[in-house]
Amino acid sequence: MASDNLKQLLKSAKTKGDIAGLARALSLIDKNVIGSLKVSELLNAPQSFRIGITGPPGAGKSTLISKLISQFRSRQLTAAVLAVDPSSPITKGAILGDRIRMHEHMDDEGVFVRSIGSRGHHGGLSASVYVMTRALEYFGFDIIIIETVGVGQTEVEIMNVADCVAVAVVPESGDSIQAMKAGVFEISNVFIVNKSDRPGAEQMVKELESTLGAKIFSTEAINGKGIPELANYLISAREKQEWKKQRAFPKRLQAEAAALFAEKMRQDINKKIAKIKKPRDLSRLLR
Amino acid sequence: MASDNLKQLLKSAKTKGDIAGLARALSLIDKNVIGSLKVSELLNAPQSFRIGITGPPGAGKSTLISKLISQFRSRQLTAAVLAVDPSSPITKGAILGDRIRMHEHMDDEGVFVRSIGSRGHHGGLSASVYVMTRALEYFGFDIIIIETVGVGQTEVEIMNVADCVAVAVVPESGDSIQAMKAGVFEISNVFIVNKSDRPGAEQMVKELESTLGAKIFSTEAINGKGIPELANYLISAREKQEWKKQRAFPKRLQAEAAALFAEKMRQDINKKIAKIKKPRDLSRLLR
Repeated sequence: MASDNLKQLLKSAKTKGDIAGLARALSLIDKNVIGSLKVSELLNAPQSFRIGITGPPGAGKSTLISKLISQFRSRQLTAAVLAVDPSSPITKGAILGDRIRMHEHMDDEGVFVRSIGSRGHHGGLSASVYVMTRALEYFGFDIIIIETVGVGQTEVEIMNVADCVAVAVVPESGDSIQAMKAGVFEISNVFIVNKSDRPGAEQMVKELESTLGAKIFSTEAINGKGIPELANYLISAREKQEWKKQRAFPKRLQAEAAALFAEKMRQDINKKIAKIKKPRDLSRLLR
Repeated sequence: MASDNLKQLLKSAKTKGDIAGLARALSLIDKNVIGSLKVSELLNAPQSFRIGITGPPGAGKSTLISKLISQFRSRQLTAAVLAVDPSSPITKGAILGDRIRMHEHMDDEGVFVRSIGSRGHHGGLSASVYVMTRALEYFGFDIIIIETVGVGQTEVEIMNVADCVAVAVVPESGDSIQAMKAGVFEISNVFIVNKSDRPGAEQMVKELESTLGAKIFSTEAINGKGIPELANYLISAREKQEWKKQRAFPKRLQAEAAALFAEKMRQDINKKIAKIKKPRDLSRLLR
């Protein structure tokens, strides 16, 4: 059974701290998300603090995450990154992404990075993110970062996956911010104005302060400026454990159930519709 | 039974040529799309030529459609318009739309106009469009125009609903065209550069000609310029009957089945996920 393989792979990876085994387990999950639910270890995984990082392309999210991870590691916290990469039509971009992102943590066993291409499987991508995140929790990471590009559908779902959502922008993002769904602002706990050495940064911080209730940080991720403050804030949010109460709301679990159920239906539907040959056959859908 | 009501209403509306009865039948369908499949008249409806008209907001689609209808009417062809109006959060915009659109055909029994607001029911909206279109075919319109705004998901679905897809743009649409999904170009049979008296129109036609295989028309819908040529092209496409062969492809029917099935599942899902209370409950989704 595929789920028995996954169970063994996950348990062995966790016991040995085997990152390569974990990577293989995630691939199995991505191939068969719904079947993975048979693995009780995933359903009963301990909870890691999940940080969602979203924002327009070019906001420097990968660099921000890489620098945040250095801060987490300096305090003995392990971290995994799940980067949802919508630029990838098949998985080409995602595989490339795995290699070029977070290069500086390549040899650190306490850091794990995985990209997922969107491959056109809309609801299915969310389902994969949910279950892969459970696998990372089972493995035992202290912090899990879910990176998404804040355009399209993904940024709303991140509120349900993550315990804390940070939106990263740059001073030039004015137009992008206008174009971002209003939802992004409602879901964000933290706002990051990155590349804050550029003109317009101060103005942007002021505007965000006047319109948002969220915490705002100015950073220059590339040279580490503002990163310790941001990391401190996130680590302290993790320690406060308020997120565990929020995670216990049925709403969160039900959003996950909805994404998983949608994926199951998507798989079922293709089998069913292939049998539709005449208009009368449409009435079969009632059954 | 609700479907018996719908059946009676449809039959009586068709017999009497009762447009108001048809409008009530469409409302019943929109409220219970899946239940409507019990009405065999919808599944065995005759086929009308379905024209999809899409394009960015401000391209003048409603005016274009109104002028096209005048051309169709002058040749004794009846026409129905199904306008998918994503701007409407509830149905406010849609109801308003019904009133202000196509005002000049208000007293013509051979013309029917209906707007549908997207009301956030994504797949459900497609399902409604499919089944409402069947109802319009059953009623016996010669031509059915499905109008959608060419942003987001809708423009890809229109290829499966319509027999001929026309994309309308204006000379200022350069950026919108860039932002439109590549899919729009692949699906379009006809390209309309409307408001062609504006600067840049000629240039746009030339650019489209060099990049697209589709037929291109320059129009000034507001004063009728270019409309007879466009109408002739569409009427002649209708007469050629090539679209009936394309409609017979299982692919078309299966796309409809997929939208309907997705809607059925969407209705089922909310009941199911409400029962999810603990992580273990997620395994129920497997059943």
